[in-house]
Amino acid sequence: MQLDGNGNLRHLLTLKNLDRALLIDILDDAEGYLTHAGHRPARRDLLAGRTVANLFFEPSTRTRASFDLAAKRLGADVLNLDVNTSSRKKGESILDTIYTLQAMQVDVMVIRDASAGVPAFIARHVQDHVSILNAGESDVSHPTQGLLDLLTIRQHKGGFEDLIVTIVGDIRHSRVAMSISHGLATLGVGELRLVSPPPLAPEPESVPGAMVTDDLQRGLDGADVVMALRIQRERIGNLDGIPSIDEYFASFGISQEHLAWAAPDAIVMHPGPMNRGIEIESAVADGPQSVIEQQVTNGVAVRMAVLDRVGRVMADQ
Amino acid sequence: MQLDGNGNLRHLLTLKNLDRALLIDILDDAEGYLTHAGHRPARRDLLAGRTVANLFFEPSTRTRASFDLAAKRLGADVLNLDVNTSSRKKGESILDTIYTLQAMQVDVMVIRDASAGVPAFIARHVQDHVSILNAGESDVSHPTQGLLDLLTIRQHKGGFEDLIVTIVGDIRHSRVAMSISHGLATLGVGELRLVSPPPLAPEPESVPGAMVTDDLQRGLDGADVVMALRIQRERIGNLDGIPSIDEYFASFGISQEHLAWAAPDAIVMHPGPMNRGIEIESAVADGPQSVIEQQVTNGVAVRMAVLDRVGRVMADQ
Amino acid sequence: MQLDGNGNLRHLLTLKNLDRALLIDILDDAEGYLTHAGHRPARRDLLAGRTVANLFFEPSTRTRASFDLAAKRLGADVLNLDVNTSSRKKGESILDTIYTLQAMQVDVMVIRDASAGVPAFIARHVQDHVSILNAGESDVSHPTQGLLDLLTIRQHKGGFEDLIVTIVGDIRHSRVAMSISHGLATLGVGELRLVSPPPLAPEPESVPGAMVTDDLQRGLDGADVVMALRIQRERIGNLDGIPSIDEYFASFGISQEHLAWAAPDAIVMHPGPMNRGIEIESAVADGPQSVIEQQVTNGVAVRMAVLDRVGRVMADQ
Repeated sequence: MQLDGNGNLRHLLTLKNLDRALLIDILDDAEGYLTHAGHRPARRDLLAGRTVANLFFEPSTRTRASFDLAAKRLGADVLNLDVNTSSRKKGESILDTIYTLQAMQVDVMVIRDASAGVPAFIARHVQDHVSILNAGESDVSHPTQGLLDLLTIRQHKGGFEDLIVTIVGDIRHSRVAMSISHGLATLGVGELRLVSPPPLAPEPESVPGAMVTDDLQRGLDGADVVMALRIQRERIGNLDGIPSIDEYFASFGISQEHLAWAAPDAIVMHPGPMNRGIEIESAVADGPQSVIEQQVTNGVAVRMAVLDRVGRVMADQ
Repeated sequence: MQLDGNGNLRHLLTLKNLDRALLIDILDDAEGYLTHAGHRPARRDLLAGRTVANLFFEPSTRTRASFDLAAKRLGADVLNLDVNTSSRKKGESILDTIYTLQAMQVDVMVIRDASAGVPAFIARHVQDHVSILNAGESDVSHPTQGLLDLLTIRQHKGGFEDLIVTIVGDIRHSRVAMSISHGLATLGVGELRLVSPPPLAPEPESVPGAMVTDDLQRGLDGADVVMALRIQRERIGNLDGIPSIDEYFASFGISQEHLAWAAPDAIVMHPGPMNRGIEIESAVADGPQSVIEQQVTNGVAVRMAVLDRVGRVMADQ
Repeated sequence: MQLDGNGNLRHLLTLKNLDRALLIDILDDAEGYLTHAGHRPARRDLLAGRTVANLFFEPSTRTRASFDLAAKRLGADVLNLDVNTSSRKKGESILDTIYTLQAMQVDVMVIRDASAGVPAFIARHVQDHVSILNAGESDVSHPTQGLLDLLTIRQHKGGFEDLIVTIVGDIRHSRVAMSISHGLATLGVGELRLVSPPPLAPEPESVPGAMVTDDLQRGLDGADVVMALRIQRERIGNLDGIPSIDEYFASFGISQEHLAWAAPDAIVMHPGPMNRGIEIESAVADGPQSVIEQQVTNGVAVRMAVLDRVGRVMADQ
């Protein structure tokens, strides 16, 4: 349901089962939106006259700002809906909010929600001329994050086939881990390893083919890409054998000491915002192997590429 | 005081006593801003270089978004003032806030306030080059809502003279009911009926000439236009003889069963956000007689027409 | 550190020690951005394609709105970050937020923070192509406020050398008083007087050369410029000898009676928002000697001048 009748991208809800060629096309487009640091960001007018609404039902700084800038740099009008003063307070159903925005001729709705299934539910109900972009859905999916992660890996490693990619942290509750896993499955990663304390391991079969382990050394051994996930502080302490933040850092933190287990030219990623000293050591986050800021830059480019692409479908009408 | 020395619209505070010809002109202009669904919304550059400030001292999603998009589609810069972090917290008077915005060369101030008289009070104090648009004033007035309701009725019924228009719900506390009533009085409606539980009936003489009743069947009998108003849930249960939501729906809800009392081609309206299952049944809200989404679309067009018109007055200077 | 290698303004953190010629250049530029009331505000496209982010970690209406409008009138994209839903909630360090915005190719960051040293700290860490503008820093500095105050004085008095400037109120906790004092020191004011209850007097030596007194009559005697500062209501009552608001007004309020001590053509200033009846009498705030609204207008012009100037540095790259 993400594609229109001509096979073009209309909604972006998940990377799961998204066509390999389309995925590569989006990454290629995103490369075209990157400029050198200090230069003006790339701009195009493709969305001039179009309206993009950001509906964030969970707080977010970076993803909302990234979509906001991507839309503005394509010339769109942007409507930021403040959730705190929103109609949800008044008890309106989310679908009525969506119908209202649709009737205002909003063309693209960027949606973050804490409940699984909301973006797809909405996409099933909007009119033909509206695109839904998932900006983070419960523990399920965060497809533009997955795309920016894929782009970052491709920039540094050239491809995916021979790579060992290791994701460390709260895999079970991570939409970031889910989306990058879906993308890597489609693009054919060499090996995917998921490292976490057992209570935070993924549901069985949720990531087919991945190695699941609670042994960080085993997970990092020879890895080409190391991605640390943000851990909710409140989850630590409720975990068997992890009574404290120090304990978590000692067992699962990406420190310089632990990173030495990975390949010497491994890159280190983090979706942000970081808990420095918990899931990642500052010396690593700011070190030569870190590509964390490049991920942020790629995020705007990837979102421009996606907005551009769904805008082209509209222009076809 | 809504017109300038040349009889042109400068402020929009109320539809009461607004000239019939001007009212029709605004509706005609608004028609010009409507496009087909899926097509790009209409745009003009009349407000390029102008600044529109949204000052919402009550929470709002739809009206604020509608004004925001209307202003942006006319090329204006839009300043959205967040009430929660506003200077009211610091104890500043509303007039000092207005003087400050005026000194920043804000041209149009869109104001929603819970206190009666605030928009007119402000309009009396601003300089000649500033326009005040009332975006919802206590229980008193919501003129752009009235205009969009008039436009919607005209689109579906052609005119007003032979119509029976029935408004159902909390008439006493409804600025929506007041504004549409003012507009209908000017345009010469056939018959206006106001249906509500007795404690929510309008103040005597507040709507001259209207039939006031607590009998839904009598109110709906043969009606051409049925408008359900939003009821505050907390008001139900304090009403004589209406101990519950179910009771309210049974007596005053616009259900398919009740709607059968109206004319077969009656249209159903609601200003939103809806309490489905309380003042309106979902089967009606989403049914073939509902024009609720068209009201939203008309809202943007009407606000563009009003902004355009006050902008023309500025251009005269 | 505010200037780049060519001596051009790159960051604006404080007016302290800012070059006299540069200060006058900024004031001259700001004059060029002033238009007559009712006319369209001045606009230029110098920042088209650039991104300005407003990061306000303290609530603000007027300063945020002023920067927002200044940036939009220069054609920039503006990103307003809502602090209430910001990543600080998630425990992210301010520097990581800054690095994220920088990686999104934000060009100018406008920062208000309650902690001293934050803007300079950030300025030391950003890349060469990013400018930091201080929009209010604890009790320390508020340089664009200082500039707009200087511009207002110059407009009305022609220069500074023969002037007596008197600032009245909570000097100790006032970044406004600090910044105007720095600017006046550079431009060579005739005499600067600081009037406050003793507990709110400035730290010794914080304003070299100023007369410090708790005697309002002595402070106002023959003054050409009188600036009332906003007092935090909660501070009154904890002050020796000032048990009430009435008492404060009687001793330190700028009333018509007290203003008579100043020169007959003295101008009265206030940075806003005003506590009418506490630090300033309404008859004075709205009277013929008040230039308070001109300060607001000058605020937008000064911020355009500063944004324009840091934008030119970027264009050089």
